[in-house]
Amino acid sequence: MENPFPSDADETRIAMMRATYDALCKHGYTDLTVQRIGEEFPKSKSLIYQHYDGKDELLVDFLESLLDFFEGESPPGDSADALDRLETFLEYMLDPERQEFMSAMIELRAQAPHNEAFRAQFAKSDRAFREHLAGIVRAGIEQGVFRDVDPDRTAEFVLTTVHGAILRQVSTDGEVDISVVREELDAYLRSRVLVEEGSVR
Amino acid sequence: MENPFPSDADETRIAMMRATYDALCKHGYTDLTVQRIGEEFPKSKSLIYQHYDGKDELLVDFLESLLDFFEGESPPGDSADALDRLETFLEYMLDPERQEFMSAMIELRAQAPHNEAFRAQFAKSDRAFREHLAGIVRAGIEQGVFRDVDPDRTAEFVLTTVHGAILRQVSTDGEVDISVVREELDAYLRSRVLVEEGSVR
Repeated sequence: MENPFPSDADETRIAMMRATYDALCKHGYTDLTVQRIGEEFPKSKSLIYQHYDGKDELLVDFLESLLDFFEGESPPGDSADALDRLETFLEYMLDPERQEFMSAMIELRAQAPHNEAFRAQFAKSDRAFREHLAGIVRAGIEQGVFRDVDPDRTAEFVLTTVHGAILRQVSTDGEVDISVVREELDAYLRSRVLVEEGSVR
Repeated sequence: MENPFPSDADETRIAMMRATYDALCKHGYTDLTVQRIGEEFPKSKSLIYQHYDGKDELLVDFLESLLDFFEGESPPGDSADALDRLETFLEYMLDPERQEFMSAMIELRAQAPHNEAFRAQFAKSDRAFREHLAGIVRAGIEQGVFRDVDPDRTAEFVLTTVHGAILRQVSTDGEVDISVVREELDAYLRSRVLVEEGSVR
């Protein structure tokens, strides 16, 4: 999985976010230290200590940056076919090449019950992802390819299933067959959401 | 949420499991120590150190004990109404009173990518839960209340959604409305699994 933060970025913050991404994929949350983030950082390590009070403060900013990136990548006014957009979203979320990164995200979420700043940040990003998905559902209804379902409820359900798939996959060594979950999710979409008995793919 | 391990148990292992449950709900995984488990343990703390090499070894045994408890509570040959059994299972998994415990379970799952023994144990329990749910679906098909669906695939999907709901709930301070997820899950079951357009509840 490619680091979403450009390597040629001149801006210090972006370079720090890039280093955080690499260090998080490499070490996971528990073994992550500011020192290890510094090892991935091409500029002076002292810059990191100047900007952040510790790894958790840095990680909250990192989560915010990821959300900015996601929102920049997926403009809500996108007029493309709603089915294609839904497919792209599901492929992106369940991409097996993002497993290391998703494992790290699960670790961060697992810290959230004890960390108010993490909780607030995940609440914010879950809201943004739900709104993004609900926007796709709304577009599909307007385009006549989706039934008149509740976009927010549909988005909440799909997002929940996707998160469950990631959680179970990273914690069980492949005991969970993601393709089965994806196929059942498609079946749900066909029977509840799509106008015709077509496939999401 | 009541501790599933009896307080009047004479057996040392059960008393240790009970103490582990209480300490885990109180401190979460990251802040859990054998010392803190000892504080919940009514017998001599040295017994814990005699049995286990550290908190992770103790926790693997704890996960195994929880699975034994779950399997003891829910005999696979149960002849009760399949719809009732499904409802009971979903209520149990999404019980808001179990939130502290479920948070701790998410923390343990988040350790799994770095801990082979945890991964093996979660794979084992996911398999057991899937088989339990698939058994309910099979019974429902035999009783004529469920359609001729694939019991394993249906179970995999339901279990995934339930885990996603727990993960998102504990990490977002209530941004996720569990009742919406539950209602959409019921809608999925009605449109895909149940013979008649009835409610799961």
